Amino acid sequence: MRFSSATSSDGVCEQLFTLGEIPGVLWTPEGSSGARPLILVGHGGGQHKKARGIVARARRFVTECGFGVVAVDVPGHGDRPKDEEYDRIATENQARVAAGEELAPMIAGFQALVARQTVPEWQAVLDEVQQLEHVGAGPVGYWGVSLGCGLGVPFVAAEPRVRAAVLGLGGALASADAAARITVPVEFLLQWDDERVPRAQGLALFDAFASAEKTLHANPGKHGELPAFELDSTLRFFARHLG
Amino acid sequence: MRFSSATSSDGVCEQLFTLGEIPGVLWTPEGSSGARPLILVGHGGGQHKKARGIVARARRFVTECGFGVVAVDVPGHGDRPKDEEYDRIATENQARVAAGEELAPMIAGFQALVARQTVPEWQAVLDEVQQLEHVGAGPVGYWGVSLGCGLGVPFVAAEPRVRAAVLGLGGALASADAAARITVPVEFLLQWDDERVPRAQGLALFDAFASAEKTLHANPGKHGELPAFELDSTLRFFARHLG
Repeated sequence: MRFSSATSSDGVCEQLFTLGEIPGVLWTPEGSSGARPLILVGHGGGQHKKARGIVARARRFVTECGFGVVAVDVPGHGDRPKDEEYDRIATENQARVAAGEELAPMIAGFQALVARQTVPEWQAVLDEVQQLEHVGAGPVGYWGVSLGCGLGVPFVAAEPRVRAAVLGLGGALASADAAARITVPVEFLLQWDDERVPRAQGLALFDAFASAEKTLHANPGKHGELPAFELDSTLRFFARHLG
Repeated sequence: MRFSSATSSDGVCEQLFTLGEIPGVLWTPEGSSGARPLILVGHGGGQHKKARGIVARARRFVTECGFGVVAVDVPGHGDRPKDEEYDRIATENQARVAAGEELAPMIAGFQALVARQTVPEWQAVLDEVQQLEHVGAGPVGYWGVSLGCGLGVPFVAAEPRVRAAVLGLGGALASADAAARITVPVEFLLQWDDERVPRAQGLALFDAFASAEKTLHANPGKHGELPAFELDSTLRFFARHLG
């Protein structure tokens, strides 16, 4: 793990790093030391580790909860090179949608393929970040919606360090099997008028989690229109389970 | 409106009253004066204005938000006399359920009947309570689940003073028409394994609200098993919209 830069502003230290081929960013409270809860944040499709919504969430986790937050670029996103296989599949899928095929099964298949790469990548990132003195081996949370849900569900299912997860904007088609192996508390965000994930698919994914504590928050609006007050709720959810 | 008693404990003043034939209770911050938000709380079937869950919510609204809270007994409940017509219908319904008929349509019909009495009763209670110097004409919220939802939906639809409502454990069969006339923010509580309200009925009621801001909170468990953390969420919801 190599750190390439460290900057601080408004109480938040931001460190850019690479772990092998994976570019990442770590946010921690400025001047902090010792173990703390760590949130791994998964970005959405077409976004990257420092997308505006990711940074806004990370800063609030750090300043209001004292957590560490880590995000990495998904293959083919952000500072990572284009991935020829993923690009080929994406181009094929666009053609199939143009020809009238359903979008949801294609998204599901694609996310399952990418997750086979990202689950071990994210586990390696946790291994390294938790060895840092100012992060340590505290409890881990996961936050991710849309692509961050499609990749997050198999990650949370596979990774016992994750003790609570906020997921959403994903459907059962992609994730039900892995969801049935998740037993930690889950807060699941569903957009009632999601144009990409059919409502029944989202409800079926919520239904699939094996967690004794799981809570569905559904709000009107399209895929990209999560209301701002849900971030307040996310903070309280993680504070309750990791704090 | 006649007050029969006033007691105070832990910062909360509790006043019992009757308005005509309606027995009620008003909670306010001890020693307070001036206008404040007021929450009308509707109790569940078989419960009453001072049921444990009602009192617990009321005390938190008062101590943590500085609100006033009022609750009254629904006809046939608490300190009100038995209602012969309602009793007769309830007995008939029990016999029909025993004979294999579906429960939900019967509950819906019964609640619609009772609501024709309770909507004007609750409006009269608001009229009177808001004339008190330590309550005043501030914004009004409504909280009610189960029977409190079945009676609350037509009340919130009819009463323009209500600016935000927490409802839940109810279905579209009873309430969809009135719900379509509600435009204020709604937080809707649904129990994923509700043995009394079919899941699809609850989801359809959430869908029916015309509110631009409405949020569904669904949790595992049966009709009577609302998780404690939802009360925290309710407090923040009312603080956001009435505070």
